[in-house]
Amino acid sequence: MVKRERWRQDFSGWFSDMLQEADIMDTRYPVKGLYVWRPYGMKLRNLVFSILRQLHESSGHHEVLFPLLIPETLFQKEAEHIRGFGGQVYWVTHGGNQKLNIRLALRPTSETSMYPMFALWIRTHADLPIKVYQVVNVFRYETKMTKPMIRLREVTTFKEAHTAHATKDEAESQVKEAIKIYQKFYDELGVPYIVSKRPPWDTFAGAVYSIAFDTITPDGKALQIGTIHNLGQNFAKVYGLRYEGVDGKHHLVYQTCYGISERAVAAAIMAHGDDDGLCLPPQVAPVQVVIIPIPFKERETPVEKVAGEVKEELTAAGIRAHLDNRDLRPGNKFYYWERRGVPLRIEIGPKDVEREQITAVRRDTGEKLTIARKSLKTQLVQVLEQITNHLRERAKKSFQGFVNSTTDLKSAKELLKKRGGIVRIPWCGQESCGKQIAEKTEGEMLGEEIDSAPTQTAKCPICSRQATVNALLAKTY
Amino acid sequence: MVKRERWRQDFSGWFSDMLQEADIMDTRYPVKGLYVWRPYGMKLRNLVFSILRQLHESSGHHEVLFPLLIPETLFQKEAEHIRGFGGQVYWVTHGGNQKLNIRLALRPTSETSMYPMFALWIRTHADLPIKVYQVVNVFRYETKMTKPMIRLREVTTFKEAHTAHATKDEAESQVKEAIKIYQKFYDELGVPYIVSKRPPWDTFAGAVYSIAFDTITPDGKALQIGTIHNLGQNFAKVYGLRYEGVDGKHHLVYQTCYGISERAVAAAIMAHGDDDGLCLPPQVAPVQVVIIPIPFKERETPVEKVAGEVKEELTAAGIRAHLDNRDLRPGNKFYYWERRGVPLRIEIGPKDVEREQITAVRRDTGEKLTIARKSLKTQLVQVLEQITNHLRERAKKSFQGFVNSTTDLKSAKELLKKRGGIVRIPWCGQESCGKQIAEKTEGEMLGEEIDSAPTQTAKCPICSRQATVNALLAKTY
Repeated sequence: MVKRERWRQDFSGWFSDMLQEADIMDTRYPVKGLYVWRPYGMKLRNLVFSILRQLHESSGHHEVLFPLLIPETLFQKEAEHIRGFGGQVYWVTHGGNQKLNIRLALRPTSETSMYPMFALWIRTHADLPIKVYQVVNVFRYETKMTKPMIRLREVTTFKEAHTAHATKDEAESQVKEAIKIYQKFYDELGVPYIVSKRPPWDTFAGAVYSIAFDTITPDGKALQIGTIHNLGQNFAKVYGLRYEGVDGKHHLVYQTCYGISERAVAAAIMAHGDDDGLCLPPQVAPVQVVIIPIPFKERETPVEKVAGEVKEELTAAGIRAHLDNRDLRPGNKFYYWERRGVPLRIEIGPKDVEREQITAVRRDTGEKLTIARKSLKTQLVQVLEQITNHLRERAKKSFQGFVNSTTDLKSAKELLKKRGGIVRIPWCGQESCGKQIAEKTEGEMLGEEIDSAPTQTAKCPICSRQATVNALLAKTY
Repeated sequence: MVKRERWRQDFSGWFSDMLQEADIMDTRYPVKGLYVWRPYGMKLRNLVFSILRQLHESSGHHEVLFPLLIPETLFQKEAEHIRGFGGQVYWVTHGGNQKLNIRLALRPTSETSMYPMFALWIRTHADLPIKVYQVVNVFRYETKMTKPMIRLREVTTFKEAHTAHATKDEAESQVKEAIKIYQKFYDELGVPYIVSKRPPWDTFAGAVYSIAFDTITPDGKALQIGTIHNLGQNFAKVYGLRYEGVDGKHHLVYQTCYGISERAVAAAIMAHGDDDGLCLPPQVAPVQVVIIPIPFKERETPVEKVAGEVKEELTAAGIRAHLDNRDLRPGNKFYYWERRGVPLRIEIGPKDVEREQITAVRRDTGEKLTIARKSLKTQLVQVLEQITNHLRERAKKSFQGFVNSTTDLKSAKELLKKRGGIVRIPWCGQESCGKQIAEKTEGEMLGEEIDSAPTQTAKCPICSRQATVNALLAKTY
């Protein structure tokens, strides 16, 4: 029933086409790496990010909004940081015809604009913790091949959270809370992920360590979909973030930051799609149920009327229902809404009206259901839940098929080459061994897996010492 | 009861101080014209703009999101337009260390990025109308004195709507719809306004005509809080926006655009405040009711417990209630929440607990009310509505006191000088007369008032011909 050949074998082509055909984005904006969110895509984006906002609000994060423009003086202060972004920053140099005295960076992320302000906000321990977030546009002068939603010059939708704490332990707990938030978020979207601690050579500039969420594309490549950084006191030192403790002395704060971009939307699209188009999880589908009247000339009116009633009934029940009464053939409408990934289609023909029923067709399985009008609402709620669960399980299964374990380098290399995905291999944790593992398997080291440990007898495939962690290898998108 | 001396006599100082003291914005960001939205201010901003979004959605506008960066080539295409913004545009010239081939403008508004895409979206009459909006940051290299929320280099929150239509009449109707939307929006906020058609010399570059909403600051100056432009076919010609009509021929579309910025938030703050701080309309108040326990040592527990119950009860009823159980004196808490403009304060002391009542204090009037616990919810809803109405009426009255009519130039000049506000004076509608009226009264011509007409015998004070419109004059903020 479900065809996933192109989705798997030509994922890049599938993804670009679907964004355009399902009215998610217009990829024809005449600047490399910049794209336009179209109305249907924008609704999807807003629904996805409303889950993320909600998770932040309910865990005590407060929304703020900082300027886009960061003066070079402030930006340069974090020399570590500029090393991380310097080559990729867009610079504003002129206002009108005037050259600016100080160049302004378009934020690539907001540490350097936020933390000097935090320094003004923090006086005593009573001002801590600070837990804020913003959803903003950020910029990178990306020289690699750009890709809508995935590799952008303007990331239009970056949720970045920033926190400050009195103690190291609290910062550590905050990292754990952030991991939980991201887990819940991606669980809600039915997007599978694996969590790892990035290796030292791939840690965020200025961070003590970085945690990352990766998913796997349909063609077997790892895609980073969220990062969490424990910043320790590195930024606090640079920007003078000190608080007066109960001991009357001044201490540097500990900080964390964590971000998710519109890649989350890309992840939801890729996890569940098929050759016919998108297949959206009900929770974020802009249209959850589309109602298509199947009229016959002599009986048009009752069909239209009942379709209208059904739409009202579902809307009143809090279901995002849409009645498609355009002057098109039903088949065209089916195609149209399939592309757009609407989870459930309701068809109402003269027979359905007579029998006081509707016909429902699931987007995920193609299954046809006949549902009595009188139990419509409760049954639809159930079916939507079944779709949610089915999508989640299906994506998980596909993901698990891509995650393989091995203990030797040769098979790791072969697995990466033949099956792609992620390969788990024991590692002693030493940087030099880690780099050699990556090199010899021709993969990239995602990092050490969180929540997994090698067996007691497992050895590092380079130095043969006892393995302390599981390394994750992949080809990255 | 209500003191409004500083509010009126030192409005600029009052406004800046209140933004800082009520945790709306931090005005200490180290770049001129850029400010930071703090959590409480951000909540206010979101509530204000959610009304505006809702009004756009319910009238068939679809949200989109276009890139911030506009290539100079596209930007220059609208020569009229660049004349309007050229001197005030920020230019990105470098990516990393590389000089860009084509300079990129930070959008001052989005006609030049949107309309070339519209040209791709519009094929036939079936693609029309297009009605889209976005809420984005826009930039102006402002050389005048900047002011948080009011005169910015980064306008953080610009709702811009753009439409395209098959006929001139439809564009004309769209202007009327936009006026209605803005009226409803400001009515909801209780912000008084006057609507006028800007004079030809103050029309948006590229527009056939511009309509503007102005309010009046507490110190009597006109402040533009919304504009609506009928663009005719001017942009359509430049960007080739054509559709195939039912006649099989290709026609240029007609367009409109209209925008409201975070000045709307400023307008709501200034309209209702007083010397003690903000006084927010319940609909947009981040906290509608603050509950303050007034404990006595020996009876602390029941007070705290009841306060918690009241908070739960109100939250369940959909009221944004906050329980302030910080370890501070009640008087400090009163002051704190007064500054922040919370419409209603509930005090719960031992006596209140005994008598199964609460004491409520209105922020707008200072009035104290005793309300029985059992009718709390229904009574509070009523009181909040009374506050809404009272604020609206009070603001309207204050506004009306600032709008004066006269027929001669001398008294117009005097009125502007002595009482400020807006002066209405008959005008023949000729540009040369209009400019002279403005010059001789030392005011600025806002334009001709919509929905008002001079008496049949009224004469233009310059040429003495019959007046056809009422001109509005003011000192502007």
